[in-house]
Amino acid sequence: MTTAKRDTYTPETLLSVAVQVFNERGYDGTSMEHLSKAAGISKSSIYHHVAGKEELLRRAVSRALDGLFGILDEDHARVGRAVDRLEHVVRRMVDVLISELPYVTLLLRVRGNTDTERWALERRREFDHRVAELLKAASADGDVRADIDVRLATRLVFGMINSVVEWYRPDGRGAGEREVADAVARLVFEGLRGAG
Amino acid sequence: MTTAKRDTYTPETLLSVAVQVFNERGYDGTSMEHLSKAAGISKSSIYHHVAGKEELLRRAVSRALDGLFGILDEDHARVGRAVDRLEHVVRRMVDVLISELPYVTLLLRVRGNTDTERWALERRREFDHRVAELLKAASADGDVRADIDVRLATRLVFGMINSVVEWYRPDGRGAGEREVADAVARLVFEGLRGAG
Repeated sequence: MTTAKRDTYTPETLLSVAVQVFNERGYDGTSMEHLSKAAGISKSSIYHHVAGKEELLRRAVSRALDGLFGILDEDHARVGRAVDRLEHVVRRMVDVLISELPYVTLLLRVRGNTDTERWALERRREFDHRVAELLKAASADGDVRADIDVRLATRLVFGMINSVVEWYRPDGRGAGEREVADAVARLVFEGLRGAG
Repeated sequence: MTTAKRDTYTPETLLSVAVQVFNERGYDGTSMEHLSKAAGISKSSIYHHVAGKEELLRRAVSRALDGLFGILDEDHARVGRAVDRLEHVVRRMVDVLISELPYVTLLLRVRGNTDTERWALERRREFDHRVAELLKAASADGDVRADIDVRLATRLVFGMINSVVEWYRPDGRGAGEREVADAVARLVFEGLRGAG
């Protein structure tokens, strides 16, 4: 039995508790009982807000996906040379990863056992594809090196960017959001030997 | 009950079955029962080879760690300018990741609940530190850009390299080992805009 506290949750604040539990225990390993315990309210109170844990997952990954897809609608991602648009997208991906850290962490760990997980994977692939298209366009413009396969380059660049969720901690002691975005953009576009 | 087959395992072949199960179910989520089922031999047959699942974990992550630390003892990692030694290490890390894929995958997923896991994390940190020292030396030589913090650069470069375990499949259809190592080295040292 959970010592029930008064339910003052909004769907938004309940979501932030759920995402933390999902990231700690894994989505599969999380029961409504775990969510109820973490939130300090009864299961029926949770059902008052959402239909179940899959709805919480859908809302959480939607938040991450909306952040990422939102980047592609920004002016700097739509207008200009492909390589500059790509650089804007890379920087902003780091921003979104950091500002929506727990939500993007969850998105990146989704494996695909439920409809919601499969949908999330599909949307992630769509986003990756949009970025790969930008890289391809920059390559066609002759603005990025031609001696790396576009698909391989996309995967490696995503690998570097996504790794940020593994170690970034918003405690103010490590590198700040701006410093990380700058470092990623410099490494991705100019490399370690680049003009420093 | 498992339908026991004749135990023709060596510690080596048993290890390769165990690593696959650990990677699929997670180390915590794997019981001796799961290992017995996957290997098709009884639990007591497994105990004939090893003291338990923690010994299998130790052997598996040791194999990955030996591969990685072995790189640092190679001539090209010990002699020459720091930046060239670093490039050698980066390329060889990709080689080891690919040739020891399941073992390195397991190493990268270790979280630290048991003594063996904590020891593996400690050794990983030691390896990261050795590579960071090389990057620092290359920076002191003026051979790598000075406008990215060494610790941050190390993390991002490791992020790119380690991401290979997420998508590399040794089925001969995607990029080969050499192509991936070349792509990583080019991106890390010269970036996307580099002379292609």
